[in-house]
Amino acid sequence: MFRFISSILGFVLILAGQADAEPASTGIQPSPNGIQLPHGYKDWSVLSVSHRVDNRTLRAIVGNEIAIKAARTGQTNPWPDGAILGKMVWKETSEQHWPKAIAPREFVHAEFMLKDARKYRNGTGWGWARWTGLEQKPYGKDANVAQECIACHTPVKSRDWVFTTPAELP
Amino acid sequence: MFRFISSILGFVLILAGQADAEPASTGIQPSPNGIQLPHGYKDWSVLSVSHRVDNRTLRAIVGNEIAIKAARTGQTNPWPDGAILGKMVWKETSEQHWPKAIAPREFVHAEFMLKDARKYRNGTGWGWARWTGLEQKPYGKDANVAQECIACHTPVKSRDWVFTTPAELP
Repeated sequence: MFRFISSILGFVLILAGQADAEPASTGIQPSPNGIQLPHGYKDWSVLSVSHRVDNRTLRAIVGNEIAIKAARTGQTNPWPDGAILGKMVWKETSEQHWPKAIAPREFVHAEFMLKDARKYRNGTGWGWARWTGLEQKPYGKDANVAQECIACHTPVKSRDWVFTTPAELP
Repeated sequence: MFRFISSILGFVLILAGQADAEPASTGIQPSPNGIQLPHGYKDWSVLSVSHRVDNRTLRAIVGNEIAIKAARTGQTNPWPDGAILGKMVWKETSEQHWPKAIAPREFVHAEFMLKDARKYRNGTGWGWARWTGLEQKPYGKDANVAQECIACHTPVKSRDWVFTTPAELP
């Protein structure tokens, strides 16, 4: 009887976990690993910004409400379940009227880390996905697409796999 | 009688204009020109980002709801009344685990342009203000503080005084 209740409870928790980690669909095709494009990410608040001089891109790093709350209260190692971090990435250009300001040119991609320690317990505790271009085409060939993300993020395994330090704000 | 009604109407419009352009106080001292720190700017959505290599700062450019809607519908020359543009500015550093990524170090200031074509009709159509440091100290010595902002922004007078081009997004 205990095993039966335990199984039911597990199933319910799995469903709840999926609801947390996979927000409402936006009509865009999901990532090959099944992750849906997070809804409304363009409206999220800023966690940080960066300029990658190696591949000449500018980035805005944003977070959903759970992530922003976690950042502002220092709960980022580990990040809480339900936190989603997003990066909006652009090629760089020089601001026409202030050439010493490097500013965005065309949009490259939006990429995401979705924290769910139980759902992704056999990996990093995060789901990983990217959509490229203005058409938001899912990135990657198959369900193992996250391996490429994880390989790059391995140097920050001890920071819960996250490069970004939330920027200092008043 | 017409003059009397006209005067009353003008007074009501002035009050309405002030309500638009000066959001709820946050307990921070106002700018010397009377502008209050816009409420909740840290939660606003991203308009763009930039890296000023001349003074080694990184910036997130954000907007209130009116500004974001204007940016997404291309209504930015002129920007509509009620639009507020904010810049959060940090000194630059290298990302510890990815040195070719330039990322924020300490917070420098938050600065704002508040559009109100009628209220600021004798100037640029914008109110200008800045608060420095984590303590958000109002910047400038007197009510003419905006002259310094305007001097710098004069090259973009034909762009409604705004350097930022809203970044391309899906």
